[in-house]
Amino acid sequence: MKIEGRSTRTIWPTPDGAAVEVIDQTVLPHRYATRRIANVGDAIAAIATMIVRGAPLIGATAAYGLALALREDGDAARPDRAYGHLLRARPTAVNLRNALDDVSAHVAGLAPERRADAAWARAAAICDEDVAACKRIGEAGLPLIEAARRPGAKAVNILTHCNAGWLATVDWGTATAPIYMAHDRGVPVHVFVDETRPRNQGAALTAYELGQHGVPHTLIADNAGGHLMQRGEIDLCIVGADRVTSRGDAANKIGTYLKALAARANGVPFYVALPQTTIDWTISDGLRDIEIEERDPAEVTHISGLGENGDVARVALAPLGSRARNPAFDVTPAELVTALITDGGVCPASAAGLAALFKRAA
Amino acid sequence: MKIEGRSTRTIWPTPDGAAVEVIDQTVLPHRYATRRIANVGDAIAAIATMIVRGAPLIGATAAYGLALALREDGDAARPDRAYGHLLRARPTAVNLRNALDDVSAHVAGLAPERRADAAWARAAAICDEDVAACKRIGEAGLPLIEAARRPGAKAVNILTHCNAGWLATVDWGTATAPIYMAHDRGVPVHVFVDETRPRNQGAALTAYELGQHGVPHTLIADNAGGHLMQRGEIDLCIVGADRVTSRGDAANKIGTYLKALAARANGVPFYVALPQTTIDWTISDGLRDIEIEERDPAEVTHISGLGENGDVARVALAPLGSRARNPAFDVTPAELVTALITDGGVCPASAAGLAALFKRAA
Repeated sequence: MKIEGRSTRTIWPTPDGAAVEVIDQTVLPHRYATRRIANVGDAIAAIATMIVRGAPLIGATAAYGLALALREDGDAARPDRAYGHLLRARPTAVNLRNALDDVSAHVAGLAPERRADAAWARAAAICDEDVAACKRIGEAGLPLIEAARRPGAKAVNILTHCNAGWLATVDWGTATAPIYMAHDRGVPVHVFVDETRPRNQGAALTAYELGQHGVPHTLIADNAGGHLMQRGEIDLCIVGADRVTSRGDAANKIGTYLKALAARANGVPFYVALPQTTIDWTISDGLRDIEIEERDPAEVTHISGLGENGDVARVALAPLGSRARNPAFDVTPAELVTALITDGGVCPASAAGLAALFKRAA
Repeated sequence: MKIEGRSTRTIWPTPDGAAVEVIDQTVLPHRYATRRIANVGDAIAAIATMIVRGAPLIGATAAYGLALALREDGDAARPDRAYGHLLRARPTAVNLRNALDDVSAHVAGLAPERRADAAWARAAAICDEDVAACKRIGEAGLPLIEAARRPGAKAVNILTHCNAGWLATVDWGTATAPIYMAHDRGVPVHVFVDETRPRNQGAALTAYELGQHGVPHTLIADNAGGHLMQRGEIDLCIVGADRVTSRGDAANKIGTYLKALAARANGVPFYVALPQTTIDWTISDGLRDIEIEERDPAEVTHISGLGENGDVARVALAPLGSRARNPAFDVTPAELVTALITDGGVCPASAAGLAALFKRAA
């Protein structure tokens, strides 16, 4: 997608092939800066300090990190150690391990001197495959946006939560892919962006990337979405997912469930967009089987933003010493999900729907 | 309720009766300070700059303000001008006008030289009546908290939104009155406090007042309440109201509706606490008839808090120039409200329920 008018990915090799560059997401939306990743240590640090975030982008960065480690030593213990360090850089999603396993398997049968180049090529392919998957999500979701267009309405009004945008992937994003595709093809869209407390990924990242690409949008407090749906101001919701069970229960950023309830109560379609790699076929009941990470309470009691002097500052919002809790995700039961938008097509959020789309026994 | 162990109201006359003092709510929770209101200009400024806020407290402050104006001149045009200035100090609730009309009517038949003292006494009575009404709300709601106590549970877990606490009234609060009463009588309670973006009255005020009074509580992002209800961690919800229709639809701080939906979906009782003065008997359908105020978008894009240097600082959360919308209230339909807790007792949120309690034809 575009930044300052220029098509950009979140990760790209330098022209000489010596390193990769990434967007430094820790300083967004207040500053655009890139960081150079020239060795495995840089890659580990970029993942651990959240210079890169979003499961697909973390996977892509780890793949390049392993390729860089193989350049230093294609044969010895070094790549094994690099694998371990990269894997432990974030306690997150399956993408990180998948990308590392993918690159490792790809080079396993090769002569040591050929491994580094093969790994580098494979990392590039992982990036391209992520872009292609997101694009297929966009193509699958586009007709749903077009169908929601009301005669005479200025635009299709879409609500999204958190950042399931291109900044979390290599390009296009998941929830945002159908939105960018609609916008690029001239379907008028307008996005209500949930702020997404406590980490404010909506205000900081989704508002930024939509703005840079020129997609009309309006930031709202997380509290406002129900009211807007009640008043008929939202035509559809599209959110991403961190994990979807075999029957379509969706774990996503905390607060997603409240929007799904409001959508159901007001007859607004509620879609979850995801690459099929997000489906966990081993579990069915999301409420029972998905453990919800509780993060640092300081994310609730404090917040960072751009101070009036131009520096990023952290301020306390609550009485000092206040106890807080910070569940990071919630589970939206499949019954509240109108459909899943995947890189394999659209299907009902149900065991039968998912099984039919992906040809597995229900 | 208590601040630093001492029973306190939000407004009180100085010992010499020359002025009133109020808690400066603009610097809470980071600092406790009081302000002296010695003339009508001080009262207007305190209301306009939100040193005092909350409809009942605004009414009480305006009543004292009018009494102070009458001290300067009991007969001439000055009290009329004071009435107008006080009325326009906030574009809010019916309490402001009611308090001014109350004091005006009370002194109307008196000789000019007796008016100031009578107005002062009436202002004090308005404060006492507010305290008594809130206390009756507490007594009405207390059995509902006791009934929610689960055998073997450490405490009754209550969720509240925004600040319908004693800081918004003269003492006790509305939604908090049953909570303080339960706590004071030894019923173990624990309150989940919604942060309440965008103005953060939960994090700043409710967490502060509960903490000062010693009521166990935990601050959460507004997004977290649905998840906690899903997991059975909330026994009941109690919120306040800005306006309740004759059939029980309740306008309250934005985001209340989302919690009511989650409560209904998870079988959690959802109570709205209010003095009967909050009921607007002239309207029935809250969604149709209550206009929702849209406030400054900067409340969404920016936030204030205590900086690391000890000063209160304002920071930007979104890309500079981001468009935002800021609806301040939403309407919770009566169907989602388990019961109304009023100073006249508890009743179903329905036309029949309200009419029966307040002896009006439905």
